[in-house]
Amino acid sequence: MKNFDINEDPHRRYNPLINEWVLVSPHRSKRPWQGQNETVTSDSLPEYDPTCYLCPGNVRANGEVNPAYENSFVFENDFAALKQEEIAFEENKNETFFKAQPERGISRVVCFSPKHNLTLPEMAVVAIEDIIHTWQKEYTDLGKIDYINHVQIFENKGSVMGCSNPHPHGQIWAQSSLPTEVEKTQNNLKAYFDKHGSTLLQDYLQEELKLNERIVIENDHFVALVPFWAIWPYETMIISKRHFGKITDFTETEKTAFATILKQLTTKYDNLFETSFPYSSGIHQSPTDGESHPEWQFHMHFYPPLLRSATVKKFMVGYEMLGESQRDITPEKSAEVLKNLSELHYKHSL
Amino acid sequence: MKNFDINEDPHRRYNPLINEWVLVSPHRSKRPWQGQNETVTSDSLPEYDPTCYLCPGNVRANGEVNPAYENSFVFENDFAALKQEEIAFEENKNETFFKAQPERGISRVVCFSPKHNLTLPEMAVVAIEDIIHTWQKEYTDLGKIDYINHVQIFENKGSVMGCSNPHPHGQIWAQSSLPTEVEKTQNNLKAYFDKHGSTLLQDYLQEELKLNERIVIENDHFVALVPFWAIWPYETMIISKRHFGKITDFTETEKTAFATILKQLTTKYDNLFETSFPYSSGIHQSPTDGESHPEWQFHMHFYPPLLRSATVKKFMVGYEMLGESQRDITPEKSAEVLKNLSELHYKHSL
Ligand SMILES: O=P(O)(O)O[C@H]1O[C@H](CO)[C@@H](O)[C@H](O)[C@H]1O
Ligand SMILES: O=P(O)(O)O[C@H]1O[C@H](CO)[C@@H](O)[C@H](O)[C@H]1O
Repeated sequence: MKNFDINEDPHRRYNPLINEWVLVSPHRSKRPWQGQNETVTSDSLPEYDPTCYLCPGNVRANGEVNPAYENSFVFENDFAALKQEEIAFEENKNETFFKAQPERGISRVVCFSPKHNLTLPEMAVVAIEDIIHTWQKEYTDLGKIDYINHVQIFENKGSVMGCSNPHPHGQIWAQSSLPTEVEKTQNNLKAYFDKHGSTLLQDYLQEELKLNERIVIENDHFVALVPFWAIWPYETMIISKRHFGKITDFTETEKTAFATILKQLTTKYDNLFETSFPYSSGIHQSPTDGESHPEWQFHMHFYPPLLRSATVKKFMVGYEMLGESQRDITPEKSAEVLKNLSELHYKHSL
Repeated sequence: MKNFDINEDPHRRYNPLINEWVLVSPHRSKRPWQGQNETVTSDSLPEYDPTCYLCPGNVRANGEVNPAYENSFVFENDFAALKQEEIAFEENKNETFFKAQPERGISRVVCFSPKHNLTLPEMAVVAIEDIIHTWQKEYTDLGKIDYINHVQIFENKGSVMGCSNPHPHGQIWAQSSLPTEVEKTQNNLKAYFDKHGSTLLQDYLQEELKLNERIVIENDHFVALVPFWAIWPYETMIISKRHFGKITDFTETEKTAFATILKQLTTKYDNLFETSFPYSSGIHQSPTDGESHPEWQFHMHFYPPLLRSATVKKFMVGYEMLGESQRDITPEKSAEVLKNLSELHYKHSL
């Protein structure tokens, strides 16, 4: 009988953060593609677009005028999925099938730059530091609100990720409950901490640094790696080296180091297929429920859909929706590809 | 303080099948859309396409020639994600971070019809019965194989769902492990059965029939409804009325009733935006591990992405990937819309 070779044989890998598996089919990378092709976003957007509702000085859907902002700029989402209003509600503890509860929260939009055509990889490190500063301020301000127990900072980049405006921006959804994925993570981090007295992601990071098979970028304070259990072809995670739970714990040096690794990672992404690389990214960090949460370790996820080129993405569909996530290229191979890419942006390397 | 109104206020709903929540934002339906538009698949495909690798008589990627099949036709996937080969492997029980195990399985493709341009809603009920017969045979044959403990029958329809060929077809991935989503469902069904001595979905269905708020179609043997916890805008589930766990338990009458409700539901879907409606669908049923599984109830999920038109879909991205699934239109509203649509296909109703 043939011995198991993780680089060749179909296998499943376990994600200890959410207690789920992913099916890996390394031999399937050579499958031809005759399906849908994505449209490539034009590389030649103007610095200012008079029709963009995020550009400085322009009017938004609700009639408000954006200020002439110079760095990052935050405003309340005009079509928020959450509302701040408190709603009276009596819970029926016996309900099994029709369990529902009102959810209070706040949705904000964070413009990353006044320039319509400037995404993270092309921004200066100091400008990214300014975004981090804004994230810190929002995490603090929103987290302070009595009924807000979780602050989700995220970015949808590219039309293929449902982003309706190329102007560089992210969002923040703050709410009273822990969202499903965060609650799963919280439960697993907590169980690990209770058992081992240490942080799961801290211990995992040490092992990854020793193995050095999935590390993409490392600096003094952060590591960008392809997790062993990654589901998206070029999924990565940035983990802080020091043990702390939230973005407001950054030292000034860590802020610069995080801005730097963000720029480097997104530059590699753009360089991969020489395109403005689409992804959804987001920070997972301590809930803002007033507890201390030593089990949490600050980290940021990048979920990019592209598989083979600027136009061919991985579809998480039938089997993935009904069964489990599936990938072809191995995380080790993806890490190697990303690691070997230049940190100089392809547009500026001519 | 305002009282909770589930039709208006942001809230979360609980899915007891997988123990996860969905964020519902009914007030957000009026959000304008400036993002990506999907391409509409042409309505005028030929009955036979000489370049299609699924049409009868044509040559596939591996050089094999499809027979001149007349109803449904099954073959081994030429680029299977799973392999049948047995792999030697020693499990390391103490592994936390790098847990992996080889996975054995079989992937098959099921052509629904020799006609390149005929999807389920436009097929005759007898032709759909033939597909059901094939599913039954595959479930039996694959399930009988010693190492196969789960048989996932599914369909990806439409290029937006990663389907690379419009020729009507589905897939079957059979494997040794229970895939993540099935394992979650199994655990929750089992816990409910152990506690109540009855089947979760059977009890749920009774409540839904009483409330009659989310029922789309009902016949003597099956019900199509929008689950209370649906995440996709027009997500539905077909549940058998009688308590049985698998497709091979169908009586002849149930087979016809299932074929009929499949045709009716997919016709309503096509009629919704007058387009060949994309979705991923799949059957969840008893594992084939040789146990009796009284906790299972045969059901089929439909996960369609379209939101407002043939070209505007819902994106499950940033917040959804990092936090939890989110929807705007309520399940009750979606059920009403689907219920009121004709069961006569728009192409034939002129
Ligand atoms: O097997 P196909 O149709 O080529 O591929 C499609 O369905 C599979 C199963 O859901 C997915 O893994 C692929 O990402 C998708 O493109
Ligand atoms: O808020 P936006 O950018 O309009 O919308 C986008 O991000 C949201 C949060 O991930 C999603 O709910 C939407 O489906 C997506 O289109």
